[in-house]
Amino acid sequence: MERMKVTPWSVEGKVNYEHLIKEFGVSPITDELISRIRKITGEVHLQLRRKIFFAHRDLDFILDKYERGEKFVLYTGRGPSGPVHIGHIVPWIFTKWLQEKFGVKLYFQVTDDERFLYNPSRQLSKEEIQKYVYDNILDVIAIGFDERKTEIVVNTKAAGALYNIAIEVARHVTLSTVKAIFGFKDEDNIGIVFFPAIQAAPAFLESKLTGVNAPCLIPAAIDQDPYWRMTRDVAPKIGYYKPAQIHSRFLPALTAGGKMSASIPESAIYLKDSDEEVEYKIMNAFTGGRATKKEQKKLGGQPEICSIYQFFSFLFEENDEELMERYTACRSGELLCGECKAELTSRIKKFLHQHRKKREKAKDKIDEFLFKG
Amino acid sequence: MERMKVTPWSVEGKVNYEHLIKEFGVSPITDELISRIRKITGEVHLQLRRKIFFAHRDLDFILDKYERGEKFVLYTGRGPSGPVHIGHIVPWIFTKWLQEKFGVKLYFQVTDDERFLYNPSRQLSKEEIQKYVYDNILDVIAIGFDERKTEIVVNTKAAGALYNIAIEVARHVTLSTVKAIFGFKDEDNIGIVFFPAIQAAPAFLESKLTGVNAPCLIPAAIDQDPYWRMTRDVAPKIGYYKPAQIHSRFLPALTAGGKMSASIPESAIYLKDSDEEVEYKIMNAFTGGRATKKEQKKLGGQPEICSIYQFFSFLFEENDEELMERYTACRSGELLCGECKAELTSRIKKFLHQHRKKREKAKDKIDEFLFKG
Repeated sequence: MERMKVTPWSVEGKVNYEHLIKEFGVSPITDELISRIRKITGEVHLQLRRKIFFAHRDLDFILDKYERGEKFVLYTGRGPSGPVHIGHIVPWIFTKWLQEKFGVKLYFQVTDDERFLYNPSRQLSKEEIQKYVYDNILDVIAIGFDERKTEIVVNTKAAGALYNIAIEVARHVTLSTVKAIFGFKDEDNIGIVFFPAIQAAPAFLESKLTGVNAPCLIPAAIDQDPYWRMTRDVAPKIGYYKPAQIHSRFLPALTAGGKMSASIPESAIYLKDSDEEVEYKIMNAFTGGRATKKEQKKLGGQPEICSIYQFFSFLFEENDEELMERYTACRSGELLCGECKAELTSRIKKFLHQHRKKREKAKDKIDEFLFKG
Repeated sequence: MERMKVTPWSVEGKVNYEHLIKEFGVSPITDELISRIRKITGEVHLQLRRKIFFAHRDLDFILDKYERGEKFVLYTGRGPSGPVHIGHIVPWIFTKWLQEKFGVKLYFQVTDDERFLYNPSRQLSKEEIQKYVYDNILDVIAIGFDERKTEIVVNTKAAGALYNIAIEVARHVTLSTVKAIFGFKDEDNIGIVFFPAIQAAPAFLESKLTGVNAPCLIPAAIDQDPYWRMTRDVAPKIGYYKPAQIHSRFLPALTAGGKMSASIPESAIYLKDSDEEVEYKIMNAFTGGRATKKEQKKLGGQPEICSIYQFFSFLFEENDEELMERYTACRSGELLCGECKAELTSRIKKFLHQHRKKREKAKDKIDEFLFKG
């Protein structure tokens, strides 16, 4: 494991995560925290040991509570604006692991109201949004969450419970605050301006429903952090613990640099992509390879900037030793992009085949997962 | 009835209702509209024939629809910030009359969320607000609404249904708009800024629930008009009829000038006031009487500015001839304030005794009246 430290788990496309840690005022995930989790869970998920989940707030508080026998709840979510791609499920897979290892409840919010209220790039109809709600929920369930411990909270269906928590939150959040945090302007609609209170609500749902203050841990991509900063500020004012967070990096786009984007379909592998689409997208993906085979042999590849390598690191190579071997073989020029791409294509296709089987089975389980309020 | 026209039904304390008609862009209630209603209802409620309901928007549209066999729904409400006084029930009594004569459904909104979000003068706790919700609902039911045709919509209980309509409304209402209409500032909280969309929602609740576009008529005091201006602007954008309004004047305060106010208890008669409180308040009420009996005999009283006279006119003298007689007897100096006060005290006490009996009976009926969503 010593060698792991020098390996570039932190290859980061265009996002400067060190900078984000400072800017957002979050704490880095330390080896000490990882050891502490290992003591509880027996093993550590690859996304944690590779610091794909790289930062946190109050994770130590959550572990303190847990070690004293007080269980937390998990909370994460999804905006149903389109089909789910592999980047989306990175934190879900880790969340499933947390649920399993800590034996805790998960609230999974589906923000169909936000998608309805805020839809600048392409105006989705209510019907289209609801189609994606159904579609996305199947993908969520297919991840393998425990149906006895998971509540999928679809905002428009759960509005009764959420609104009542949201007004408690909202009462302590001024327009000035949301303008500063989210950049809202006076041209924005009053629904989207209120929405941060609705996104805050599930962090307190367990406490509200049980009447007992429940610690909450939110595993999510770092871009959601502004919501949690607001939520944490309000929590003590309304009698709840500040929700803790654990933040993930983004799985980089297959196209050069940046985050996967719905507006560039070839930037991401969608969970519904056919074998042919997967083959095509991976074949055309941006790598750290050199212009010619000869150059590659001479200079070696650059896994630090390679999207294919990141797919192995984030999801498709569970074995750290083998990931390390792939890294060094690339650097040395031994391993050519074609081989890596072929291997990843095969693993993704296998994963998607399995996922789609689980997705089919999920159709009968939706009702068990839905939060009933 | 000819003489009625010159009588001062329009005595108005400090509020200039003519000015409001222009400022709010509403239409005055005309004799023609009153005749049209009389044709349908057979008789006209005193609050309409005395033009206590003095202005409207689209009342003619509602009557057009009704005459063609299309029923409307009524919508009014109450903010549960304290006990109910006689001023509050003026529009409720008229609303009950409308419900009875037109045989239509009523949505009665109780804005406990607004009271929670906006409570500047005295910070009511959630528990106190809920106490008033219960208390106020008893007064509403005691007015005599038809339980088969009335849905009392308590916002925090009905949030599931309301939020879903409210986001449709909110999507078309910018921060700029609510700042201009309601005077919100960036220091205000995001809940109260969203609230106008929640207050708009019941206007569309029947349409939403039935899937059929239902005309809506809102009888309410004129101060609620800004909400309806906003709601009317949005309605066609989300596929509904613009809600119509019929606006009432305020029953003037017993103290000199202005509106009844919770912060000045002697300005209003509360429905729970004891006989002694009623006697005391009426005895000390501001009248149009002169300083001495002699002066009164000589100059005559001024019913135009008399709170006691307004109580007769708004609620406690159903007979127009007798009200007219009281008016002329006062003007002539024949009738002294003591006599008027004694008569009003007796009528109010009788009314409150009856009301409190109905209020007791209302305790068993709450469930039948509550909107279940």
